[in-house]
Amino acid sequence: MQFNPPYLIYLGDAKDSLAAKTGQGIVDWRPEWALGQLRLPGCHADLGIPDLDVVQAAGQGAKTLVIGTVSPGGVLPDSWSEVIVSAIEQGMDVASGLHTRLSSLPAISEAASRKGVRLFDVRHSDRTFAIGTGELRSGKRLLTVGTDCSVGKKYAALCIERELRARDVDADFRATGQTGIFISGRGVSIDAVVADFISGAAEWLAPAAEPEHWDVVEGQGSLFHPSFAGVSLGLLHGAQPDAFVVCHEPTRRTMRNIATAIPSVEAVIEATINGGRLTSPMIRCVGVAINTQLLDEAQAQKEIEAAALRLNVPVTDPVRFGVHNIVDYLLSVC
Amino acid sequence: MQFNPPYLIYLGDAKDSLAAKTGQGIVDWRPEWALGQLRLPGCHADLGIPDLDVVQAAGQGAKTLVIGTVSPGGVLPDSWSEVIVSAIEQGMDVASGLHTRLSSLPAISEAASRKGVRLFDVRHSDRTFAIGTGELRSGKRLLTVGTDCSVGKKYAALCIERELRARDVDADFRATGQTGIFISGRGVSIDAVVADFISGAAEWLAPAAEPEHWDVVEGQGSLFHPSFAGVSLGLLHGAQPDAFVVCHEPTRRTMRNIATAIPSVEAVIEATINGGRLTSPMIRCVGVAINTQLLDEAQAQKEIEAAALRLNVPVTDPVRFGVHNIVDYLLSVC
Repeated sequence: MQFNPPYLIYLGDAKDSLAAKTGQGIVDWRPEWALGQLRLPGCHADLGIPDLDVVQAAGQGAKTLVIGTVSPGGVLPDSWSEVIVSAIEQGMDVASGLHTRLSSLPAISEAASRKGVRLFDVRHSDRTFAIGTGELRSGKRLLTVGTDCSVGKKYAALCIERELRARDVDADFRATGQTGIFISGRGVSIDAVVADFISGAAEWLAPAAEPEHWDVVEGQGSLFHPSFAGVSLGLLHGAQPDAFVVCHEPTRRTMRNIATAIPSVEAVIEATINGGRLTSPMIRCVGVAINTQLLDEAQAQKEIEAAALRLNVPVTDPVRFGVHNIVDYLLSVC
Repeated sequence: MQFNPPYLIYLGDAKDSLAAKTGQGIVDWRPEWALGQLRLPGCHADLGIPDLDVVQAAGQGAKTLVIGTVSPGGVLPDSWSEVIVSAIEQGMDVASGLHTRLSSLPAISEAASRKGVRLFDVRHSDRTFAIGTGELRSGKRLLTVGTDCSVGKKYAALCIERELRARDVDADFRATGQTGIFISGRGVSIDAVVADFISGAAEWLAPAAEPEHWDVVEGQGSLFHPSFAGVSLGLLHGAQPDAFVVCHEPTRRTMRNIATAIPSVEAVIEATINGGRLTSPMIRCVGVAINTQLLDEAQAQKEIEAAALRLNVPVTDPVRFGVHNIVDYLLSVC
């Protein structure tokens, strides 16, 4: 799955900016790929990029229409079909992270086949993965892990990729979820893989590489999340990381959508080392990323300083303060 | 997925008895459901039950033709199609654990639809599972776990179900793999579920029950197997076991199909408690099942005694010596 930028980002009738977070992720991280947004009447999200219709976007070179908004239940509303077909008529590929497969709608499927464009359903992998082997492979890998879902693992990984590249270190972000796939143009939605192949898919995603090359792998879920820990462990084994960064949201008390208490960062470090050393004997924690978006700057600083004192590894909010300290440490020890 | 016994067990042209281990599992555990076997010329397996053709089997009341042999790569050979269609013509359902879906062969699909019989592909789940919640639920559950794949987790669980029932304890074996599904007539092939739903599928499989009811859940893989640990952890979280039994094959030095060393039983106990208490705070080890099939009886006894001394829990070979001691202990502590 590798699709072509630049993108026309379809927001449909998104009811608020949170519904458009996939589109926002693209604009935040790959503004050069975000040619324009296409909004239907009643759309309450705005990515701050030009409003274009499909003809204008095609004229400006848009290669892919990306569905940048979520819909209730991941269903593709019939009302979106017409615009998608118009984009296809203009020769664009279409990429969606919804549960509904684009090809399951006859109008879309028929148009795509007639125009010879590609339909990408990034939540679904039609690729056949091999079973994971756990064999040691060359290259270096970092995995972001979390105390919970949705704590900033993707943004932390992207910040680390950017910082490594800024220092002329060869590094690639490896996406494991739909927004990450749109941002990087490739990857695998690891939670949609058949269970037998979780670690195999992660091995495929971050394959053997040059000795000094870093793959920065986006983590998923949490080893302490009762819904998704299996995915997190399979990803940990397959990613075979030399280093990991723990991501944490300090104001949260219970896991997203369930009543389980958030584990401590210390517990996540211990569990990640215990689980991870099966395939990466020298695995180590190289930093902690605190998501301070709900704190003011003074509170954020205080939270980070307290954690750094307690944990004895570099701590930062990647988005707010950058990841210089984590990358300094990473490059000094790995 | 719930299908009807008795079964006509199809062995095809199985090249040896190991290839027919699914059929053997049925004969070992549900002989009353194993009406007969159907072998093609050149078959080198023999389950020791009557050879019947489809007409004879149907006449004796066979309800389901079960594919009891594995084929290279899980592919359904064309040469099997004719017999399968004949069974359908006699009104039998067909159940298969192969990767190839029965319905993907037009002759089979067409016959099934014409005769109104059901086709079961137990490796594939078309059921939509919910995300696991981790919420504490009523009833008691035991999970068999392992130091590796294929060490006797299914047989240990079946022995424990049988022993509990012999003591008038309400107990159900819960199958998580294809052979277990054929033996119990229901279950879910947990490694074929989409990764996001591993623990949710396990919650569905062993749902809330009467306070004194035991679900005995067949384990899969190992927390220490780099290919499948994600499945094992998701199953552990979803099964929410009060008790677990560690299964071990003492002559094996490396994991099945890979070079990873077999972990110690102690390491598996520790990892299972550490992982399992997320959803089952009081989880405990109630026994160890040593698979001694490659040892003579004196060696087997010695191995078991040494382990019991070291581990301080009941140890046995369930198949060779029964599980009285484990069930005694289980019922005294849980």
